[in-house]
Amino acid sequence: MPMRRLCVHTITTKPLSLEECLVEFPKRGVSGITIWRQALEGRDLGSVARQTREAGLDVVSLCRGGFFPAATAAGRQAAIDDNLKAIEQAHAIGAPLIVLVCGAVPGQPLTESRQQIADGIAAVLPAAEKAGVKLAIEPLHPMYADDRSAVNTMRQAHEICDVLGSPKSVGIAVDVYHVWWDPELKEQIDLAGKTGRLHAFHICDWRTPTIDLLNDRGLMGEGCINIREISDWVDATGFTGHREVEIFSNRLWSGDQREFLDKIAASYAQLYA
Amino acid sequence: MPMRRLCVHTITTKPLSLEECLVEFPKRGVSGITIWRQALEGRDLGSVARQTREAGLDVVSLCRGGFFPAATAAGRQAAIDDNLKAIEQAHAIGAPLIVLVCGAVPGQPLTESRQQIADGIAAVLPAAEKAGVKLAIEPLHPMYADDRSAVNTMRQAHEICDVLGSPKSVGIAVDVYHVWWDPELKEQIDLAGKTGRLHAFHICDWRTPTIDLLNDRGLMGEGCINIREISDWVDATGFTGHREVEIFSNRLWSGDQREFLDKIAASYAQLYA
Repeated sequence: MPMRRLCVHTITTKPLSLEECLVEFPKRGVSGITIWRQALEGRDLGSVARQTREAGLDVVSLCRGGFFPAATAAGRQAAIDDNLKAIEQAHAIGAPLIVLVCGAVPGQPLTESRQQIADGIAAVLPAAEKAGVKLAIEPLHPMYADDRSAVNTMRQAHEICDVLGSPKSVGIAVDVYHVWWDPELKEQIDLAGKTGRLHAFHICDWRTPTIDLLNDRGLMGEGCINIREISDWVDATGFTGHREVEIFSNRLWSGDQREFLDKIAASYAQLYA
Repeated sequence: MPMRRLCVHTITTKPLSLEECLVEFPKRGVSGITIWRQALEGRDLGSVARQTREAGLDVVSLCRGGFFPAATAAGRQAAIDDNLKAIEQAHAIGAPLIVLVCGAVPGQPLTESRQQIADGIAAVLPAAEKAGVKLAIEPLHPMYADDRSAVNTMRQAHEICDVLGSPKSVGIAVDVYHVWWDPELKEQIDLAGKTGRLHAFHICDWRTPTIDLLNDRGLMGEGCINIREISDWVDATGFTGHREVEIFSNRLWSGDQREFLDKIAASYAQLYA
């Protein structure tokens, strides 16, 4: 059952509609789907929940919440409101988890942004717990520290969990693209396992050269990341959740998405053979 | 004397010849020059030393050595030979320091690359000491971990110094572009001061958005880096060396380089007013 834990993000095949994803993913043995919020636009959330279930796909998570830091109190409140909406959406489609891209404000001290992130999560946590939706802090690669996330290592994600008092609902999403370079990666994954914080695991690859900071990720096998080794570290903690393929790539989005899905399935099967 | 510690790298004004740099830098009060090896091509090194002295410029360092990791023993020996050549060049032009971009091999474990880096430095260290040339490990931003450097934080640079037995000739080059995001930055700078390892300090800025991983650095003030704060941390260790402006930018290289030098001087004067 090599595909049993394979999940694909709707953004990975961005040119496909959600309805097309629900047809095409299961054909390749994909068992999970992580739904990006833009894929929900104009749709009835109850119907999405039903259609996804009928397609035989587990909804693994909703992407994405976060972006808590802002220069003004009004901006920070708007972010909190948006995250409360995301929690409602996650609950409505049956997603047990929301991935948080935590946010940053260019020129604002990173320490201040991290405080605002902790404050923002604390503000929405009661609603998340009431809805039965978990939250996963996703450390982002340091090249996104200017405007996407002031949380750039697993150590920092753990520190925010600590600051919040280690609520069970708040954990970490480990994405190999963001953390593969970190010399502390194995010990921080171990710690996430021991603390019950390992909430999600994302895979893709780092290409050499990488020609775009955002949208030049590689399919597994196209780059230099030791994906299988990291994956084994994750599994060694007892993690049995999905391995989520999350790829942003202008190159791959420009091709036939059904062939791309074939390649995802083949690459995944080879990686976990 | 706001410009007393201003150094500019020849690569910063890449379209200018070395001879043009020697004329244009002093006109703006620049007091130091870091010479990139490509600027030495086809030139007599003794003459470069004399011309630079006559221009009133301190040679701050030679850029760059390093790139020690390689997949084969022959490749690693070639890197050592090239670094020995760089040491000769540095000695000949009167550069007291060589900056090391340490290297990495895509797909080779970073731990193995770091071992090869330590081995490579150890192999060239006697020649460097004999020539009176210091070596500075420059931690590179994690976005270069695939093929440019397996040393991505100051902590890792310190660890390599430790492994080598803390020779006085081996230290660290702190470049704000590479390390500004690091939550440990202040304490690692403090440690570099205490251990006598703070060998060089490079400045530029991080633009939002950054559109090229290599050549889209900003002039000081164009981005989000807390340059003055980091600079103050560096000075607080007792560091009195040059502040070296090292900017790779297709955008800035495409303009008039004399106007660019005016802007560098103005931006520097404002930053350290």
